[in-house]
Amino acid sequence: MSSPELLYEGKAKKIFRLAGEPDHVLMEFKDSLTAFNALKKGSFDSKGPVNRDIASLIFAFLRGRGVDSHWVRDEGERGMVARRVEIIPLEVVVRNVLAGSTAKKLGLEEGRVLPRPLVEFYFKNDELQDPFVSDDQIEILGIASAADLAELKKQALRVNEGLKDLFHRAGLRLVDFKIEFGRDKAGKILLADEITPDCCRLWDEKTNEKMDKDRFRRDLGQVKESYEQVLQRLRQIGGGK
Amino acid sequence: MSSPELLYEGKAKKIFRLAGEPDHVLMEFKDSLTAFNALKKGSFDSKGPVNRDIASLIFAFLRGRGVDSHWVRDEGERGMVARRVEIIPLEVVVRNVLAGSTAKKLGLEEGRVLPRPLVEFYFKNDELQDPFVSDDQIEILGIASAADLAELKKQALRVNEGLKDLFHRAGLRLVDFKIEFGRDKAGKILLADEITPDCCRLWDEKTNEKMDKDRFRRDLGQVKESYEQVLQRLRQIGGGK
Repeated sequence: MSSPELLYEGKAKKIFRLAGEPDHVLMEFKDSLTAFNALKKGSFDSKGPVNRDIASLIFAFLRGRGVDSHWVRDEGERGMVARRVEIIPLEVVVRNVLAGSTAKKLGLEEGRVLPRPLVEFYFKNDELQDPFVSDDQIEILGIASAADLAELKKQALRVNEGLKDLFHRAGLRLVDFKIEFGRDKAGKILLADEITPDCCRLWDEKTNEKMDKDRFRRDLGQVKESYEQVLQRLRQIGGGK
Repeated sequence: MSSPELLYEGKAKKIFRLAGEPDHVLMEFKDSLTAFNALKKGSFDSKGPVNRDIASLIFAFLRGRGVDSHWVRDEGERGMVARRVEIIPLEVVVRNVLAGSTAKKLGLEEGRVLPRPLVEFYFKNDELQDPFVSDDQIEILGIASAADLAELKKQALRVNEGLKDLFHRAGLRLVDFKIEFGRDKAGKILLADEITPDCCRLWDEKTNEKMDKDRFRRDLGQVKESYEQVLQRLRQIGGGK
């Protein structure tokens, strides 16, 4: 048997063609960790398997909440079989509490609770450093249609409601997260990519300690332990089921 | 008589208190020219008077088109008496043709004609370098209400319709422009600040030559001549009346 064909390698995942399953791909979760558009690099040995497990658990949980995703099944310790989709070139960020780039650009302190969830779009382009874009820019410049944008917002807010609840049961506050969507062969928009501590801000509800990639970004230490802790807590609550 | 009290000095204007007219201020148009958040500085001797004349002519023209502004009357060669307003901290940009920061951040070429005018908002804050903000950020972070935002957009698009027509009659293509709004004592939202080649992109319809501050930003020369030419053309068409 020949080794599977690599279709794409990103910062945290490799995507392979899957023999005999043309509508599916195999995603392999890597151990590497990057920040600031890959200017900062790191890794820890359990990262791929832990993130795969967290992502699968979350996709399964969200499916129970009516949010369909590209997730099909797990494979090995760091593989995920997913429906093949064409990624919509927008990073969708939902914020419940102000933090990160939006706090910084507006000169506001992190930690402000927002009166309602804030949905933001960033144009996915590493070279341009994923610029922030408005709805009007997206529509008028033809990045996505108004109808698609409304669908992305609706799904993103539904994901937020589910995740807030799930993480709360695990003693974690969902500050914000980044998701991506793709379009399958039939044109249906599906939640894609991954949801893991790489792309969520999760603060311990009791101690306010960060339990996500900010530990790596900001050199807070205990990165591996925090990721493993998130998985352990999600397992303890039975994945929210 | 004592000299008037300076209330505020900006990059291109000084604002003075006006004795006996508490609801008005005196704006003085300076000869200085700045770009890139004042990292680049210059000036030319007729700049203040030319910009004052252009701004007054445009405010008068727009009033005839149903857009009210803070403009009251001219005073001396570089003064403008204006209604005292509290500036809403948003720079409102309208684009008909792609150029400037939005083209750059998205890696697109300048000159693309947009299918409809694009309205953008930038949070007015020199220290933060006027960050681009979305409608949702403006509303959720309390910079302006949804109702105010809708009013700003409506007025900005009306200004755009008027200006496109005015400049077209002067043989100039209105690529984009930046305006600001203020609220008067009664709470009414009025077009404020100025509209001049400092804050418009104007391309000659025949030659495509730039006739605005980009000549200064990009070291194209003939800055003074271009500003004077814009005023002369607007006068030749009788200010659009």
